[in-house]
Amino acid sequence: MSDMEIIFLGTSSGTPTKKRNVSSIVIRRKSELLLFDVGEGTQRQMIISGIGLRKNVRIFISHMHGDHSSGLPSLLQSYSLLGREELLDVYGPKGIIEFALTNMRLLCFEPTYSLRIHVIKEGPILETSEYVIKALAVSHFIETYAFCLEEKQRPGKFNPQKARELGIPIRLWKKLQLGEKVIVNGREIDPSLVVSPPRRGRKVVISSDTEPLERMIEFARNADVLIHDSTYSEVHSDKAIRNYHSTAKAAAMIAKKANVRLLVLTHFSARYENVDSLVAEARSIFPNVIAAEDFLKIEVPYPE
Amino acid sequence: MSDMEIIFLGTSSGTPTKKRNVSSIVIRRKSELLLFDVGEGTQRQMIISGIGLRKNVRIFISHMHGDHSSGLPSLLQSYSLLGREELLDVYGPKGIIEFALTNMRLLCFEPTYSLRIHVIKEGPILETSEYVIKALAVSHFIETYAFCLEEKQRPGKFNPQKARELGIPIRLWKKLQLGEKVIVNGREIDPSLVVSPPRRGRKVVISSDTEPLERMIEFARNADVLIHDSTYSEVHSDKAIRNYHSTAKAAAMIAKKANVRLLVLTHFSARYENVDSLVAEARSIFPNVIAAEDFLKIEVPYPE
Repeated sequence: MSDMEIIFLGTSSGTPTKKRNVSSIVIRRKSELLLFDVGEGTQRQMIISGIGLRKNVRIFISHMHGDHSSGLPSLLQSYSLLGREELLDVYGPKGIIEFALTNMRLLCFEPTYSLRIHVIKEGPILETSEYVIKALAVSHFIETYAFCLEEKQRPGKFNPQKARELGIPIRLWKKLQLGEKVIVNGREIDPSLVVSPPRRGRKVVISSDTEPLERMIEFARNADVLIHDSTYSEVHSDKAIRNYHSTAKAAAMIAKKANVRLLVLTHFSARYENVDSLVAEARSIFPNVIAAEDFLKIEVPYPE
Repeated sequence: MSDMEIIFLGTSSGTPTKKRNVSSIVIRRKSELLLFDVGEGTQRQMIISGIGLRKNVRIFISHMHGDHSSGLPSLLQSYSLLGREELLDVYGPKGIIEFALTNMRLLCFEPTYSLRIHVIKEGPILETSEYVIKALAVSHFIETYAFCLEEKQRPGKFNPQKARELGIPIRLWKKLQLGEKVIVNGREIDPSLVVSPPRRGRKVVISSDTEPLERMIEFARNADVLIHDSTYSEVHSDKAIRNYHSTAKAAAMIAKKANVRLLVLTHFSARYENVDSLVAEARSIFPNVIAAEDFLKIEVPYPE
C-alpha cells in the first residue's frame, strides 16, 4: 500500500443522492489524514470507508456552502464524544469561526480538545517539514479556495554498492545521505558520488467549486492528481456558466494544459445518474481521466 | 398499504455507525410527512428510504443536541435547491430560530419558500382537523420534548343494509354519517341506528432522549406505538443514569404500565453492534417489543 492515498467520501454537488454523498475528500498521507471539505454526513462516510475518526487529522474547508461545510459541527462534536485531547487544526475562509462557535453554543457542546481555527487567504496556509498546502482563490458564488498539497523534495537515493566501492565506512553513510561531505582516508567525498539528485515530492490539487480558471493551470502544473469540479456535461454548459461551475470538458482542458498525470472528475450534478458521458467528454481532450465515486481510493505513488 | 407508517431514518445515539445514522423518525400519514428530529444526514436517509424530499412535510425537533438537529440546515437548503414554494413549518425548542437563521446566513442561502419556526413548550403544539401533536417536557441534559401524535375520533361505521331496511333514501345517508338526525316518512331517525359509535384514532408516542419518566406513562397511555429511548442495556444502567437516558428494561416498564400495543426500542449506543440482548431484556418485562433499525417501516393500522 502506498503511503499516500486519496479517498473520496462524497462526490455529489448540492444535494446528496442514493449513491453519492455531498463533498468531502480525504488524503491519507502516512499516518495523517488531510480532510478537504466536510459536507453533511462526512463523519459517517469516514466510518463506513474504514478510515474512521482518526485523531491525526487536519481539516480544510474550501468555502462556506453547506454541501462543503455543514458536516463540520457534528464532526467536531464526535471528536469530543470520543474524548479527543489532541489539538485540532481547522482551516477555512472568513465565516468559519462564527460557524463553528455558534453551532457549538447552540448544539450545546464544548470540545474536549483545543481547537485552532485558521482563517485562510490565498497563498501557503500550512507548512510542515514534509509538505506545503497552498490555497488558490477560485471563482464561485462566494469566497472559495482550491487547495494544493505539495510534498517537499526528498533526498536522492543512496547507492550502497558505490559507497562500498569507494571504501566509505557505514558510520559515514548517514552524513552523505543528508547531503554532507565526508573525509575518507584523507580524500573528500562529495555526496553526489553516492546519492542521486533530490527527487520531487508528490502534488495533489483539488479545485473545489469553480468556473474554469486560467490561473488553475499554473496552480495544478505537473500535479500527480488533479481533482476538478465537473458538475455538468457540455450539454448543460449554460448552467455551468450561470452557477460558477465547470463542465467535464473544461476540466479536461485545464488538466491537459497543466500537464497533470491523472484527472479525477467529481462534484457531479444529481441529474446524472450515470457519468460515463462526462468521462467520455473529458477523455476526448485528455486521456488519463476517471470519475470519482464515493469510497473510491486512489493510491498516489512517488513519481517513477 | 396502511395510510400511516413509521419509517426509521436514524437509530444510533450520539455518533453514527456503519449501520445506523443518528436520530430521525418520519411518520407518513396519508400524503403528509411528519419528521421527528433531523440528525446529520437525515435528508440523504430520506432519499435512500424512497420517501424523498416530499413537499408535504412538517418538521419537529425534540432538542438542540446535534445528533437530533444538525441535519436541519442542509434539509432547509435542499428544499430551496428544489425550488420549493410552499410554506414550511418547523417546531422546536428555544434556540431553534437562531440555529436555523444563523446557519442560513453563514451557509449563504435564503429559502425560496416561507419558513415558519415555532418555538414549542409543553402542551399541544399543532392541531389539524384530523390530529393533534402534543409535546411533553422530558428529563435530559437540556430542554427536551417527547412528542405524541394522536388522531381525532373518526365517525362510526355506516351500516347501509340497516339504512335500507329502515327505508332511508340514499340522499340522507351523508347527514346520518355526519351525526345528524333525519326525518323519514315523518319519523325521526337517530344516527346511532345506522352508524356505529365513533372509533378512536391512532396514537404514536416518541420519547426522544430521556431518563425513565413517570409522566411518560400517562403521556403514552394506550398508544398504538411507543418509540422509546433505549440507549443502554441494564449492564450499563450507571451510564443511563449519568447521561439522562433509558435502558431497554426501563423502556419496557413504561410500555407495560402505559398499556401500549407495541414498543419500539431505538437510539442505541454505538457500543452495541447487536441489540438482541436489549430486546430480550425488554421482552422479559413487556412481550410486544422490537428494535428499530435504519429504514425499518412499521405500518400503523386502525385499531381492530
